[in-house]
Amino acid sequence: MQANGSVGRLMQALRCLPGVGPKSAQRMAYYLLLRNRDGARVLAESLLAAVDRVGYCERCRSLSETALCAVCASPSRDQSQLCVVEMPTDVYAIDQAGCYRGVFFVLNGRLSPLDGIGPVELGLDRLEQRLAGGEIKEVVLATNTTVEGEATAHYLGEMAQRHHIRTTRIAYGVPMGGELEFVDGATLSLAFNGRREF
Amino acid sequence: MQANGSVGRLMQALRCLPGVGPKSAQRMAYYLLLRNRDGARVLAESLLAAVDRVGYCERCRSLSETALCAVCASPSRDQSQLCVVEMPTDVYAIDQAGCYRGVFFVLNGRLSPLDGIGPVELGLDRLEQRLAGGEIKEVVLATNTTVEGEATAHYLGEMAQRHHIRTTRIAYGVPMGGELEFVDGATLSLAFNGRREF
Repeated sequence: MQANGSVGRLMQALRCLPGVGPKSAQRMAYYLLLRNRDGARVLAESLLAAVDRVGYCERCRSLSETALCAVCASPSRDQSQLCVVEMPTDVYAIDQAGCYRGVFFVLNGRLSPLDGIGPVELGLDRLEQRLAGGEIKEVVLATNTTVEGEATAHYLGEMAQRHHIRTTRIAYGVPMGGELEFVDGATLSLAFNGRREF
Repeated sequence: MQANGSVGRLMQALRCLPGVGPKSAQRMAYYLLLRNRDGARVLAESLLAAVDRVGYCERCRSLSETALCAVCASPSRDQSQLCVVEMPTDVYAIDQAGCYRGVFFVLNGRLSPLDGIGPVELGLDRLEQRLAGGEIKEVVLATNTTVEGEATAHYLGEMAQRHHIRTTRIAYGVPMGGELEFVDGATLSLAFNGRREF
């Protein structure tokens, strides 16, 4: 009965959210309608505002409400260091860590031929132009250390080296606070092979 | 960087959904903005439509887009049997089971004094009026078999009996397909105490 009409359409629409199946969507719809209609209105307005206002930074492809994002527009950033990441969230995480003062290039994905995501979808033509511009002195590859992230880093590394730009990859190893017992074998091998003088 | 502005406000707004914390909200916001802006627009419109159009059935307090919900308005329903449930989802579940042809009264909650939910919040004044009307011949108590649901059923049972109306409670026992080994002790006791001739 209740699954038709506006309630049913709301349940269906909620399923567009990642990780939300039919049961969660039902729970969310009833919760909003029975307990938090103000929250539902605010959510609807935030969705529309974000979809309308948030575009992509024309230089780094991160999400931005202005033509240039805050990082690209900042005069205190080192424009000769370019860190390539998969997602806008990675920019935020690296920035929070405070370890890097260069600029970014955001792929908004990773090479994944099976899903139809190739160099064009990741904006690599624009990255190539930027590498050809001569301003970049170092490319830091900070894609995820997954199979697809590694393949993407490999592809980007070859691209940067064609332009004779120094290319680095973030270090592999044991994470801080990690107990060796619980670290997987692949990571341990990389940590041993990458060992440094103490 | 990215957590300010419209994106940040969207993340904050998504946290009004039950079960969504900061990490899920971030994932949802980026997913919608990077991969599914049409879905975000549809979700926003569905939220507004549901909040604007869906009210409460004036007879049973279930969610409804019309003054009377489909169940209350149906001429084929037995108006002398009244099943009291906690949530509109329960109406849907019982209807799907096809075991009941009477009408419903939806509490939209359960008695919970610590949360400030008393008889008024559950619309029990309206239920009392309906019981006093003389049309109801049986009240089926179908609140949840939780502590609060049981307390609510007890309260409702006393109310119905003041009006000399037959009052029943849905049966406790072992669920279909349940293996006894995995059924909790309280349920097993109830199943033994409620045993019937075979």
